[in-house]
Amino acid sequence: MEDRATTVGKIKEKIEEFVKERDWGKFHSPKNLSMSLAIEIAELMESFQWLTSEQSEAPNLSTGNKKKIREEIADIAINLLNICNVLDIDLSEAIAEKLLINARKYHIDLDTDKAHKRKHYKGGGHGR
Amino acid sequence: MEDRATTVGKIKEKIEEFVKERDWGKFHSPKNLSMSLAIEIAELMESFQWLTSEQSEAPNLSTGNKKKIREEIADIAINLLNICNVLDIDLSEAIAEKLLINARKYHIDLDTDKAHKRKHYKGGGHGR
Amino acid sequence: MEDRATTVGKIKEKIEEFVKERDWGKFHSPKNLSMSLAIEIAELMESFQWLTSEQSEAPNLSTGNKKKIREEIADIAINLLNICNVLDIDLSEAIAEKLLINARKYHIDLDTDKAHKRKHYKGGGHGR
Amino acid sequence: MEDRATTVGKIKEKIEEFVKERDWGKFHSPKNLSMSLAIEIAELMESFQWLTSEQSEAPNLSTGNKKKIREEIADIAINLLNICNVLDIDLSEAIAEKLLINARKYHIDLDTDKAHKRKHYKGGGHGR
Repeated sequence: MEDRATTVGKIKEKIEEFVKERDWGKFHSPKNLSMSLAIEIAELMESFQWLTSEQSEAPNLSTGNKKKIREEIADIAINLLNICNVLDIDLSEAIAEKLLINARKYHIDLDTDKAHKRKHYKGGGHGR
Repeated sequence: MEDRATTVGKIKEKIEEFVKERDWGKFHSPKNLSMSLAIEIAELMESFQWLTSEQSEAPNLSTGNKKKIREEIADIAINLLNICNVLDIDLSEAIAEKLLINARKYHIDLDTDKAHKRKHYKGGGHGR
Repeated sequence: MEDRATTVGKIKEKIEEFVKERDWGKFHSPKNLSMSLAIEIAELMESFQWLTSEQSEAPNLSTGNKKKIREEIADIAINLLNICNVLDIDLSEAIAEKLLINARKYHIDLDTDKAHKRKHYKGGGHGR
Repeated sequence: MEDRATTVGKIKEKIEEFVKERDWGKFHSPKNLSMSLAIEIAELMESFQWLTSEQSEAPNLSTGNKKKIREEIADIAINLLNICNVLDIDLSEAIAEKLLINARKYHIDLDTDKAHKRKHYKGGGHGR
């Protein structure tokens, strides 16, 4: 199972099977799953928290840390694909559409720094 | 681009291209990207926060909410695959390995409720 | 040390002393501390994740869970007051000002449900 | 209202009054409030996300950013004290007890770096 040969649909099937075999579906409301997702991401952040940005780059991570990060990323992805199963979302389509929206918003010929900043502070009203 | 016919590798390529065209790579240390991921997940939680678990189920969501949730999930996935690109992680392989680890931990013949509970409180030492 | 007789300033002093004694200040950039805070909140969410809203109410929590939740809330508060120390923020003043802003936004005579909804989805543009 | 003269109990009263006047208590199950808290912290992280640790230090923040951060910290504190009200937790006591637990765990005479690392990776089993 490699990225270049594995479809998103195939992974979703495997995850659906895993959940079904354990009868875990009953716990998996989208609300609860969104909390799980947040908890798992916090675990990923833990791996990076006390590193500088430079230390967090791939070549500078220890083997142990890299292994842990890989597992946490897998956990996040499993949870996210489980949510897609539960909500019947075609993730590839959703991503393709979102990339189009983003591409319109952040034209290639824009000043990249400003566009990046705008992307990430688009809230504006975020300063609540 | 549909889940049943789209490889993870294909989506990763599209995202890599998107980031490159905008020269955003310089902002994307794994540390910073893990923060972005946490921020995006918070936006997903916002959609579910004041709903009961039942109201958060697919058939009970309004069309507007469903659309918003779909976009937020796409954002999370784009960010996660971007991290995989940056850290050179084969996500399909990482997921397959993690599912094996999880399958050993949570045998099918275990009491499903206890196993689920154990899965999610495995910290134990979490009670800090 | 009880809420009705303990000033915020007093607690901030205790935390400052704790950090100083251990020479931990060097790790505590506001950026890193905001990540810690997110990680600690995820631990609090873990205690509520698989409960219904009703089960999460005080009278329905087990003694063990209540103790854990109390500790996690203390951790969050310690971290938050540490950030206030580091950024030299007078929290009581900041809260008083924010309550005024909120009071203007959410007038008492407004429809409470709508105001609550507005408060929590004020992003609008959040549907990214 | 200044930290050096304001008790935690006083602030809790003001928040309780604010919530009561708007009849928002019905929305505020501990589960939902823990999600709010996570969402508000994500907003705080947004302010630091693209800064280096150095840039996030108080003297290096822009006035606008500082104001926004102050408001977000107030929001987090208001939410946290609201949870204390809802769960009837005496925060000052909880903090005092937690500082004692932490002081036993991280003795002053320990190697500070190791103790700090241990504090923040205490999960051990975190490497899921």
